[in-house]
Amino acid sequence: MSGIAEVARLAGVSKSTASRALGGTGYVSDDTRRRVMAAASSLGYVPSTSAVSLATGRTQNIGVVMPYVNRWFFAEVLEGLQQSLLQRGLDLTLYDAKPGTDGRNRIFEDFLARKRFDGLIAVGLEPDHDEIDRLLSIGRPVVSVVGSGEETTVVEIDDDYVARRATEHLVALGHRDIAFVGGGVTTHWAQVDRRRLSGYFGAMEDAGLSNHAVHIVSEVTMPGGYAAAVDALGDVRNRPTAIVATCDEVAIGTIIAARRLGVQVPSDLSVIGIDDHEFADMFSLTTLRQSPREQGRVAVQLLLEHLDDPSRPMRVVRMPSQLIVRNSTAALDPRRSAVVIDSRVRGE
Amino acid sequence: MSGIAEVARLAGVSKSTASRALGGTGYVSDDTRRRVMAAASSLGYVPSTSAVSLATGRTQNIGVVMPYVNRWFFAEVLEGLQQSLLQRGLDLTLYDAKPGTDGRNRIFEDFLARKRFDGLIAVGLEPDHDEIDRLLSIGRPVVSVVGSGEETTVVEIDDDYVARRATEHLVALGHRDIAFVGGGVTTHWAQVDRRRLSGYFGAMEDAGLSNHAVHIVSEVTMPGGYAAAVDALGDVRNRPTAIVATCDEVAIGTIIAARRLGVQVPSDLSVIGIDDHEFADMFSLTTLRQSPREQGRVAVQLLLEHLDDPSRPMRVVRMPSQLIVRNSTAALDPRRSAVVIDSRVRGE
Repeated sequence: MSGIAEVARLAGVSKSTASRALGGTGYVSDDTRRRVMAAASSLGYVPSTSAVSLATGRTQNIGVVMPYVNRWFFAEVLEGLQQSLLQRGLDLTLYDAKPGTDGRNRIFEDFLARKRFDGLIAVGLEPDHDEIDRLLSIGRPVVSVVGSGEETTVVEIDDDYVARRATEHLVALGHRDIAFVGGGVTTHWAQVDRRRLSGYFGAMEDAGLSNHAVHIVSEVTMPGGYAAAVDALGDVRNRPTAIVATCDEVAIGTIIAARRLGVQVPSDLSVIGIDDHEFADMFSLTTLRQSPREQGRVAVQLLLEHLDDPSRPMRVVRMPSQLIVRNSTAALDPRRSAVVIDSRVRGE
Repeated sequence: MSGIAEVARLAGVSKSTASRALGGTGYVSDDTRRRVMAAASSLGYVPSTSAVSLATGRTQNIGVVMPYVNRWFFAEVLEGLQQSLLQRGLDLTLYDAKPGTDGRNRIFEDFLARKRFDGLIAVGLEPDHDEIDRLLSIGRPVVSVVGSGEETTVVEIDDDYVARRATEHLVALGHRDIAFVGGGVTTHWAQVDRRRLSGYFGAMEDAGLSNHAVHIVSEVTMPGGYAAAVDALGDVRNRPTAIVATCDEVAIGTIIAARRLGVQVPSDLSVIGIDDHEFADMFSLTTLRQSPREQGRVAVQLLLEHLDDPSRPMRVVRMPSQLIVRNSTAALDPRRSAVVIDSRVRGE
């Protein structure tokens, strides 16, 4: 069986560079890493985990804690994490931490305490104070995708801003009766929803429409948005002319409900979401785009930086978002109510 | 720090029983396992991974290989796997193996060869012969969720049967122009689609409708079903009166397309799916129900049986499926075309 020396020779690098490249952490250019990986692969060299661990004190494994895997945002982040970790030869151990379950307690009490990972990535975890203390007490670097405080490095979009931007789009189209659909039911996404709701209220206030603001409570799922919208759109006289949904899944549920009730989108009702979900195009949904997959990739990069330099200060990385205008939003003016916005995807 | 002896004393069991319960494998009743876990938890006892590994020769980690995590079926299976492994104190390391990618090659060449797991669960992997050889050469037990051969123990539904059953439901409602939508585009789900297509053709043949059978090629996604249905339903004179979709995502895409085109479901078009996807109820979709989450749970149980007894023969476990009749299917008879089947969920 070939050793690291043969791999280094074939790749034309030093043994320590080959070791760093195969270890997945420490600075090595992408080109060098690829060359070393190719050399290792052609020689059939598989680094022994225990040897790598002994040499580096590392497990070559990253723990990922998330409350759901069967939801668009989480699954997309997970794809991004997977791809990035795979490129670096690192394993991914997944910890499922649904809020309020025994399983979540066990994750925090038992699994994480085993420390079978070099670092942790917490996705949409919204940990309570006790859980944050436990996470930090493990003594491994932690990066959060969507965070709630200053305790860890965080990757996220600016939730207040995106909801504000979505609301302003509808205000600019002449709408006044603009409702916000989402949140207020479960603890899941409580913090994200609160920030988005706050951005909506801020934009309504800035437009002098505070007394038109309405929060329609909804589960943050497609069926949740559907159920909330069936209720809210049923009363013709109090029906809003436009809706800001807390995410695309809720927006799509709203559109499905509108179609059921014979409410035309966008001539009777404009709907805007947040996400650019894989189904957004199918529903011609206007939305604020984010890329959870990219957030996953950035989280891996930040975690590796903390592993390389444990003294590195925490930071908050705000990812960009972009207004994508499709056919679910249109101007209020009755004479123009049949005229829809050009369906070309338009970045602003 | 407390040791295993204290845990065993507090739980009122022998040291070896406590060790088996904490190790996650070997037979221990659920009640005993819970008692030992509670004792360990109250004493703050965390089994040292290396100690457990030394004592048992096991990593306490199960590898899960799947091509996607951001699709309903896979995410649901993963939830089931997570829950079952968590209950037994076992870690889950996730290997993402998209067909035809460099990443997939690396999973098979490098990651799996590290053997950082006691056993593997392969979900919808559809491995080629070379990959199967590699999986088996690792020398760890493998259980497949949805399989393709006799090489590993398999958990799956009877795909031929469910598609046959779906088709027979439409035949019984008087339909003759019944099309099958799905598959034929990508390699993903190629084997599953082929079995379902075969079940559809079989049922059409049995009903003397072979010359009415049409396979509409479609990506196996919601947008894929939508795109295929927009094409297929556009031509009024050649439009089928009923559709068997290869899965609920394709069925829902078809329903969305029908609504767009002004085709009424079910009076103009009956649609049946396979899955009972979380959105099926929202679209009143008639479907053949399966539970991927339960398949995940059963896969863990089977893998642990193989770990306990490596000489255990391979087997194929067929999970039940059930016809759920909602409002997307109705009798063809024109005089009855407005009469829809009672929407109560009805198991057969």
